[in-house]
Amino acid sequence: MDGTFARAYFDANRDAVLEEWFTLLKLPTMGADPRRLGDCARAAAGLKHFLRPLGFEVEIMTAEGAGLPVPVVFAERQGERTGMTVLFYGHYDVQPEDPLTEWQTPPFEPTLADGRVYARGAQDNKGQMMGFLMGVRAMVEAGEPLPTLKVVVEGQEESGSEVLSALAHALAPRLQADVLMACDTSCGPDGRPAIVAGLRGVQHFTVTLEGPSHDLHSGVHGGVAPNPAQGMARLLASLHNADGSIAVKGFADLVEPPTAEEHERASASASSEEQYRAEVGCPPAGGAQGEDAVTRGSFQPTIEINGIHSGYGGPGSKTVIPAAAVAKLSMRLVPRQVPSETFAAVKKHLEARCPRGMRLTLSDACRGAPGFRLPLASPVFRLAADVLGQMDGRGAVFRWEGASIPVIATLRHISGAAPLLVGFGREEDKIHCPNESFGLDQFTQVMTWASLMLSALAE
Amino acid sequence: MDGTFARAYFDANRDAVLEEWFTLLKLPTMGADPRRLGDCARAAAGLKHFLRPLGFEVEIMTAEGAGLPVPVVFAERQGERTGMTVLFYGHYDVQPEDPLTEWQTPPFEPTLADGRVYARGAQDNKGQMMGFLMGVRAMVEAGEPLPTLKVVVEGQEESGSEVLSALAHALAPRLQADVLMACDTSCGPDGRPAIVAGLRGVQHFTVTLEGPSHDLHSGVHGGVAPNPAQGMARLLASLHNADGSIAVKGFADLVEPPTAEEHERASASASSEEQYRAEVGCPPAGGAQGEDAVTRGSFQPTIEINGIHSGYGGPGSKTVIPAAAVAKLSMRLVPRQVPSETFAAVKKHLEARCPRGMRLTLSDACRGAPGFRLPLASPVFRLAADVLGQMDGRGAVFRWEGASIPVIATLRHISGAAPLLVGFGREEDKIHCPNESFGLDQFTQVMTWASLMLSALAE
Repeated sequence: MDGTFARAYFDANRDAVLEEWFTLLKLPTMGADPRRLGDCARAAAGLKHFLRPLGFEVEIMTAEGAGLPVPVVFAERQGERTGMTVLFYGHYDVQPEDPLTEWQTPPFEPTLADGRVYARGAQDNKGQMMGFLMGVRAMVEAGEPLPTLKVVVEGQEESGSEVLSALAHALAPRLQADVLMACDTSCGPDGRPAIVAGLRGVQHFTVTLEGPSHDLHSGVHGGVAPNPAQGMARLLASLHNADGSIAVKGFADLVEPPTAEEHERASASASSEEQYRAEVGCPPAGGAQGEDAVTRGSFQPTIEINGIHSGYGGPGSKTVIPAAAVAKLSMRLVPRQVPSETFAAVKKHLEARCPRGMRLTLSDACRGAPGFRLPLASPVFRLAADVLGQMDGRGAVFRWEGASIPVIATLRHISGAAPLLVGFGREEDKIHCPNESFGLDQFTQVMTWASLMLSALAE
Repeated sequence: MDGTFARAYFDANRDAVLEEWFTLLKLPTMGADPRRLGDCARAAAGLKHFLRPLGFEVEIMTAEGAGLPVPVVFAERQGERTGMTVLFYGHYDVQPEDPLTEWQTPPFEPTLADGRVYARGAQDNKGQMMGFLMGVRAMVEAGEPLPTLKVVVEGQEESGSEVLSALAHALAPRLQADVLMACDTSCGPDGRPAIVAGLRGVQHFTVTLEGPSHDLHSGVHGGVAPNPAQGMARLLASLHNADGSIAVKGFADLVEPPTAEEHERASASASSEEQYRAEVGCPPAGGAQGEDAVTRGSFQPTIEINGIHSGYGGPGSKTVIPAAAVAKLSMRLVPRQVPSETFAAVKKHLEARCPRGMRLTLSDACRGAPGFRLPLASPVFRLAADVLGQMDGRGAVFRWEGASIPVIATLRHISGAAPLLVGFGREEDKIHCPNESFGLDQFTQVMTWASLMLSALAE
């Protein structure tokens, strides 16, 4: 088997491959939305239907008393070789599609244009996950030997992995593996394949400030009634110092700085400021002043405001004092930060500053998962670097992604496996944004990676 | 003629009166919305149709080059007596109806329940204005002598009175009057009739902060990309000091404190803190600490945030760095503050603090009108106090409203008339809010006030 194997399979079976992928993309599987439970169940059933003919024993599970019963797919296939046991993790849930008006094609009608598929989840994670599983199918159909492969696919990656976390301990014996693979990350900015050697953790919540029982006339009540929009602005502004550093006491005390090698390798694969401006439309001016962008984006925690909504937002003016203000916050965590402690620190900070005359409540809280960084000199990383070197003559880079796959920390702990996170995302895929897309070339890269790496691990 | 005259007219003509009022309420006349120009034209035509049979010469006008051509109705009726000439001002435009989901009845289907009419504009100003004009109709139909009466009704009170301001200078000779009446204000908190001896001015604008060209993944970009939601929070928080006082340099330097009599009379008709809590659902904890609520609400300026919108606001979490944040701000002004100067001060303050890596723009700017306070010992106020004493044995109170009718300052200047602002609004009317309403008892109070005061002014 070589680097052309998966691509040849794709070319020979293009319509069937796209149909499988598109069927999954058509389901609006927002795992946090109770109205989408049916679509999540359809996605899980579709995956079972895909995996069984490949020789997998497949089970669809959920957990009692763990919020929404969004199903988890667990599948296992005995290997033709006794090499390493691989646990593959993917997720079929997607981010909400809003703002809908900014989509150029409907988010749940996958559209192929100029070699790219446009849809919510086209990349994250339906595209990358189906690329991996399609690589497995190509191998099975060609009779290529595989290692023992366990597959776990959940529907709550974007919203806290509650069901899978609840199941993980009971499933522990069945999850044991040597290598934990996932395709949910990106290439280096120059397109070189990337091994993710670290991820930040994530936690989030919604904060609501309530003042008057209804919106008030801002003339009649201005200067008298407390204004929740104003209170929220002050509250959120208090989270950071003027230099952009985090002002929450006890939040970032234990941050572990990168080693010299980590910082050097991360810098080697980082975008230049010019590249960043061109891709993102603004300079990399966020975070704490005085630190470089690589450190800020990969090795430091953040507190980000993901949304604020209060009062009038239509055309012209409406002179009200809003009854309430709502903000969505998320925190990214790095090694040594303990999620329960950082969450408590932010909560305490906000509660201590609840503006006069208002009520503050936290909701939709997810205490989340810690960040981690992996040793660069591991045998699995050496093997992966060899395989990626076959795919791209320039060789692989190491990345420390600022993003999070919170359940990876749990699965790593439960399964005892070494995480191997290699994905083929690019900035232009616009994951989490309108007009998300994934190139057919990227899809076949994932297929190639799956087939080559699984072959290597089977030995 | 006595205090029962107007009520008797209402009772005898109830269906016809309500039909006139409801016809106007059914029109969604948001004067700032270009899609509502047709409804505004229908409202103006309806008023012309109402006034002509009463002996008014009526003209519908608009202004070239003054933004949206929202029509102004100007009407004039020669008096049977030569007493004072009265200029009556009203507005047929209304605030936007959102949030629509909080309305218990459709905002543009007036609904009578328990003696109150529910609709957007039921009170502000369609209800109070129609009450006044219905009082005029009752007098005309009964052959009661009236003074010379000029009526000007516009459709942009809630959005800056651009057309009327543009027309006012050319109309100056025709607007000359002795008394400028409007029914767009409220009773005292104990229900006693109130003469408004001062209004705050108002100005407003929209501020937009733009960062990335699209919403970004807050993990990938957190700590690197500038976050406009965060930037907006910091920017808006900077407008006030920790004690709630205004932090904008040059904004409130020239504030004229109330005289001892003004403060005493204003305090006499003010709500207690308990009343305020019961009506508004929160304590009167807004504005600058160290000043009493009467001073803060009537005699001091404000900068209020009327809305903030940025990023995700749906259920659960969506971990984005928003591309932009938008806020609506309005300022209330008191005597000696010059609108062009206060506007420039706020603009300069914001522009000087535009967060790193973001673009700040102001739009929808309305530099507005100044506030004013009137001498309490004027002959018109004495006459009005006598009339209101007939309507309520407790006599009238003086109020200094925190709200604004910006065009009153312009009309006062152009017409040379003494403002006489008496209205019968109550807190429970919820103007500018969902479920706005106006009681039939309040409507007939306005009719009574119009008929008695116009009779008195005709002498």
